[in-house]
Amino acid sequence: MHRTIDVGVLGATGMVGQQFVVQLARHPWFRLAWVGASDRSAGKTYAEAAPWRLPEPLPASVGRLVVQPCAPGGAPEIVFSAMDAGVAGPIEQAFARAGAYVVTNTRTHRMEPDVPLLIPEANADHLVLIDRQREARGWSGAILANPNCSTAALTLALAPLHRAFTIERLFVSTMQAVSGAGYPGVPSLDALGNVIPHIGDEEEKIERESRKILGALGPVGVEPADFAVSAHTNRVPVIDGHLETVSVGFRRRATPEDAIAVLKEFRGSPCVAGLPSSPNPPIEVDARADRPQPRLDLDRGRGMAVTVGRVRPCPILDLRMVVLGHNTIRGAAGQAVQIAELLVADGRLGQRT
Amino acid sequence: MHRTIDVGVLGATGMVGQQFVVQLARHPWFRLAWVGASDRSAGKTYAEAAPWRLPEPLPASVGRLVVQPCAPGGAPEIVFSAMDAGVAGPIEQAFARAGAYVVTNTRTHRMEPDVPLLIPEANADHLVLIDRQREARGWSGAILANPNCSTAALTLALAPLHRAFTIERLFVSTMQAVSGAGYPGVPSLDALGNVIPHIGDEEEKIERESRKILGALGPVGVEPADFAVSAHTNRVPVIDGHLETVSVGFRRRATPEDAIAVLKEFRGSPCVAGLPSSPNPPIEVDARADRPQPRLDLDRGRGMAVTVGRVRPCPILDLRMVVLGHNTIRGAAGQAVQIAELLVADGRLGQRT
Amino acid sequence: MHRTIDVGVLGATGMVGQQFVVQLARHPWFRLAWVGASDRSAGKTYAEAAPWRLPEPLPASVGRLVVQPCAPGGAPEIVFSAMDAGVAGPIEQAFARAGAYVVTNTRTHRMEPDVPLLIPEANADHLVLIDRQREARGWSGAILANPNCSTAALTLALAPLHRAFTIERLFVSTMQAVSGAGYPGVPSLDALGNVIPHIGDEEEKIERESRKILGALGPVGVEPADFAVSAHTNRVPVIDGHLETVSVGFRRRATPEDAIAVLKEFRGSPCVAGLPSSPNPPIEVDARADRPQPRLDLDRGRGMAVTVGRVRPCPILDLRMVVLGHNTIRGAAGQAVQIAELLVADGRLGQRT
Amino acid sequence: MHRTIDVGVLGATGMVGQQFVVQLARHPWFRLAWVGASDRSAGKTYAEAAPWRLPEPLPASVGRLVVQPCAPGGAPEIVFSAMDAGVAGPIEQAFARAGAYVVTNTRTHRMEPDVPLLIPEANADHLVLIDRQREARGWSGAILANPNCSTAALTLALAPLHRAFTIERLFVSTMQAVSGAGYPGVPSLDALGNVIPHIGDEEEKIERESRKILGALGPVGVEPADFAVSAHTNRVPVIDGHLETVSVGFRRRATPEDAIAVLKEFRGSPCVAGLPSSPNPPIEVDARADRPQPRLDLDRGRGMAVTVGRVRPCPILDLRMVVLGHNTIRGAAGQAVQIAELLVADGRLGQRT
Repeated sequence: MHRTIDVGVLGATGMVGQQFVVQLARHPWFRLAWVGASDRSAGKTYAEAAPWRLPEPLPASVGRLVVQPCAPGGAPEIVFSAMDAGVAGPIEQAFARAGAYVVTNTRTHRMEPDVPLLIPEANADHLVLIDRQREARGWSGAILANPNCSTAALTLALAPLHRAFTIERLFVSTMQAVSGAGYPGVPSLDALGNVIPHIGDEEEKIERESRKILGALGPVGVEPADFAVSAHTNRVPVIDGHLETVSVGFRRRATPEDAIAVLKEFRGSPCVAGLPSSPNPPIEVDARADRPQPRLDLDRGRGMAVTVGRVRPCPILDLRMVVLGHNTIRGAAGQAVQIAELLVADGRLGQRT
Repeated sequence: MHRTIDVGVLGATGMVGQQFVVQLARHPWFRLAWVGASDRSAGKTYAEAAPWRLPEPLPASVGRLVVQPCAPGGAPEIVFSAMDAGVAGPIEQAFARAGAYVVTNTRTHRMEPDVPLLIPEANADHLVLIDRQREARGWSGAILANPNCSTAALTLALAPLHRAFTIERLFVSTMQAVSGAGYPGVPSLDALGNVIPHIGDEEEKIERESRKILGALGPVGVEPADFAVSAHTNRVPVIDGHLETVSVGFRRRATPEDAIAVLKEFRGSPCVAGLPSSPNPPIEVDARADRPQPRLDLDRGRGMAVTVGRVRPCPILDLRMVVLGHNTIRGAAGQAVQIAELLVADGRLGQRT
Repeated sequence: MHRTIDVGVLGATGMVGQQFVVQLARHPWFRLAWVGASDRSAGKTYAEAAPWRLPEPLPASVGRLVVQPCAPGGAPEIVFSAMDAGVAGPIEQAFARAGAYVVTNTRTHRMEPDVPLLIPEANADHLVLIDRQREARGWSGAILANPNCSTAALTLALAPLHRAFTIERLFVSTMQAVSGAGYPGVPSLDALGNVIPHIGDEEEKIERESRKILGALGPVGVEPADFAVSAHTNRVPVIDGHLETVSVGFRRRATPEDAIAVLKEFRGSPCVAGLPSSPNPPIEVDARADRPQPRLDLDRGRGMAVTVGRVRPCPILDLRMVVLGHNTIRGAAGQAVQIAELLVADGRLGQRT
Repeated sequence: MHRTIDVGVLGATGMVGQQFVVQLARHPWFRLAWVGASDRSAGKTYAEAAPWRLPEPLPASVGRLVVQPCAPGGAPEIVFSAMDAGVAGPIEQAFARAGAYVVTNTRTHRMEPDVPLLIPEANADHLVLIDRQREARGWSGAILANPNCSTAALTLALAPLHRAFTIERLFVSTMQAVSGAGYPGVPSLDALGNVIPHIGDEEEKIERESRKILGALGPVGVEPADFAVSAHTNRVPVIDGHLETVSVGFRRRATPEDAIAVLKEFRGSPCVAGLPSSPNPPIEVDARADRPQPRLDLDRGRGMAVTVGRVRPCPILDLRMVVLGHNTIRGAAGQAVQIAELLVADGRLGQRT
């Protein structure tokens, strides 16, 4: 149906870069044809340059790719960015200026008004922001942002509830896996048998990104959803999977049964639901008293579904519930690939000026 | 100053019973002179009967004690109960009827109106309930209850804030250690690299016990404090130490600085502050961004102090903060011993009718 | 090519039983059509009876099966046994007597002289023992045994080395995952941040089973291989995967290069290599200094390959090396299914008298 | 009895340096009066310079010390070195030349013939090497080396067995805690639920250091003990405590009963046994089938005793056993302090030329 589309990865040798390699292996539409990394790695093969640290094997065809410097010449039209936030800004902009669609996992551009911050099932309509972005910035490409990992799982689970009942107040306390901190990331002396009740800037990301994702398109970008968020973020000794406890209040009163029905019925638009990476359903509701758990429920929908459990009344607001999402798939590389699929399905490729 | 007072432990061979043995070793006032357990253990020495599972060595003098059946004849005037809730009720009552002060760690009697539910620094004044209890029940002894472990740490931290600002709304999400579930307790397949977002009846305990502890003495027992609690309880792969994230709103507005000042100044009454098990201060405030952590901060005040960190504004209520307490010391055996010390300091021993 | 063959699982509701369910889902030859369990479960659907605890979803078709009592009437010709050793003996025998091929993961019959103890790549020729077994016992079926989990990985790795160089002395120290102890199995208080240097009877199993597997067919069963084994077995806080350090001495001197060549060239017989569950190659040699590791290398060959690393000289014997195998796949359900495949490929089905 | 002796710590701000601070807090003979660290830290107070990461509180008096550059002027006569091996050599030599006794935890000088490598209970007689060292090098001070952490526990346990039966062959497989790798040390992604079967140069250290420690004084330094060692070293997800499985063969045959008797009777020389840091006994033998375990047995003798368990016959050599030692106390700072105590007890202080 689709022709194979070449894609690239910026910052390909790091942990998130490696996760992109895994997500793109055997992809039905995309072929990883280009890898960019720092000057230290450029010129080596990917197998030489990347300290491969994932259980999934490195595809031989990727291992043979020669790492390129992070400059747009010769790169494909779709480029995923897994760069460090400290250096990503100008490089991502250079690629977009040169005509690439840059789907970035980096925080740098997420809150800019003309950059869509996307969870395809939740706000695919925000994609049109890239038209304004290209016009305003005079770019032939564009930057599209993937949210923070704990925000992605949470906001996907909340999207249908916000649509149905309008969130007013939201308390969330996260228990986040160490893979979210990259490699070497969290020292084992801090992680083993311990909890660290702080993840730098994570609470602020949840508070502002969730409101942008669930916001409405307005004359100047997205009008953030009008709810208040109180977040606590914690690092727990789990490899993969962010678990989040949520208390939420709505404008229109919702019972657990109402919420469960809305969560179960939720599907992205037909266009989104048909994407190769889209899980069906995107939200699984588990009725068991002690679920979801990272160890047992993480891989639902190949890591792209979020699981919601323990939907029950809240003594203060409307509802309490627990949300689980795979931080390196739904919360990072997997969803970024899904965003690129949306670009293709929306007919936007091949339009470089 | 004090004569040595003999004490006993009901349910002495289980995990909580063993923790009582450790807490009572080298106690300046108390001498563990009597251990009671099920008929299966009675008649054996404690060393034979108890599958000792703590890092601290079993004191030889306790190992030689002969385990007694759980009946009051021959038991000391102060008895700690570490019995299973399923069987504790009638036995604890029999001991109290026979003249013993039963300081129980079991949930059975906690919510009865004439049973004080005590955190000595927070509500030592509730001790007078035992006078009503003895009169109403015709007992020469009395039952005094120690709160649930996650409630104890939380409520001690909240006590001075409630006194100063009056809590109205409280959100708490706990990350609780596996030792709280006893032995064998949580299977390792459930605990390793995992989080279980459910602990049976724990949320209800937090919601009702915190309000009783912070309540005021009224004509018929304690008038529960008038605030709403929304709790989430989670089991994390930590051996000891319950960490809790808290968002709290008050009747009188409080800034983080206000709260920190109140927390730091807090002391129990002079009588309580002078007890051997009372930490000084009972609440430690840690200003570092990533503290408290179970691995680093658990043993403050020999496990009897709670540590409060990350006191900061809440976007919805007044404050957010993190509370850490040692679940088997402040949350169980250690505080139960402190309650017995309070009984002694209050001059109540030796008054059997 | 093959017709679909119905198979059953005895002890289907326990952890090993559940692993059989997963291994048989989507099997190209076998269809799980019968599940047997204790009287407590019999009559319920499998979904009701089994406390499903695996990350892989329970196949709906299996969930609908009605659990049968553990008696042979109505069971398929191939039955996998995941029963507790305490009750397995008479039941497995009854099934074999009634005509079933019982591939058992239980230790009960492993060391009987006429019961083959199989690792298909290593000793498929031992399969002929079942002819003697049927004749001697007058059975129309037979019992075939799968080795102990730590033995299976170790002995598969050693098989080509024994064939090439003849093992004389073997030291092995294991670091075994908690899943090997079933559910609830190891309490988390024993597992978290700890090592338990003892697994009941495991050292004896390694010592005797490895010698039987690598032994030669003789007039009265298997003549055990003539080497001495000194084993240490330890439980470590890992979910899946047994890692074993090995020092080994041979009759014919072997350098690391010799051994690596032999390990890499090793394949089972063509018949075995062609089985659906057989990995290709069965042994992977990893040259990296810090491999294999459970977290990164466990799933090679879909859990059926063992990984050998750090092949280096031994200051006392010939070689040191590290072996990793998946304890619930190669060490249990996966290899048992492979043994049943061998039965089919060997043309032995449909021969009930 | 003793006057208080001022001591210093080189490399005081790192993890091992912090452990020295803890070991020296409340020491009956020593007072930590001087801390040296890199130029980056020099001039700051210790509290400012050291990222304190231990559960024990930083003593206020140490926190106020001003960090000095690592040069001998003004340093006390006894200096502990916790420096990185990469820079330790010339600095430790400069201190010794200037008259200090440098008790070093660093590997740099361990194998030099005139540097004693000490476990006080095992080879206090090697202390005389410093006389040769001072003469040969023209130093008024000396360097004394503390062994590698896994070697220290192992060799202390073997010392009485070597003395009684003469070791000929030794197999050891270690399971080592992450604290042995310092901070940040092992990334949590490598440690959680995993085993790493490699610790750089650790096997070589065990093989050569154990033979030096158990060797005899000869005309040119220590004549290494004449036994062969085959070591496997592994990192396991444990915070503190190295557990080691051992198979050992002797010149004179030894039964488990013989060995247990020798282990239990073992004491250091009276001089050593009387040192403040010397545990009594130095070796504890535990008869329980599943002991020692890091979580339960690590703190015996305040971390200075090693625990030996599972002493049983070996099918190949004489004995198998399990050894546990505290890697940061007996294996590092604790034993280094004990070595300095030995210097004092031996009357060597105050002898600067």
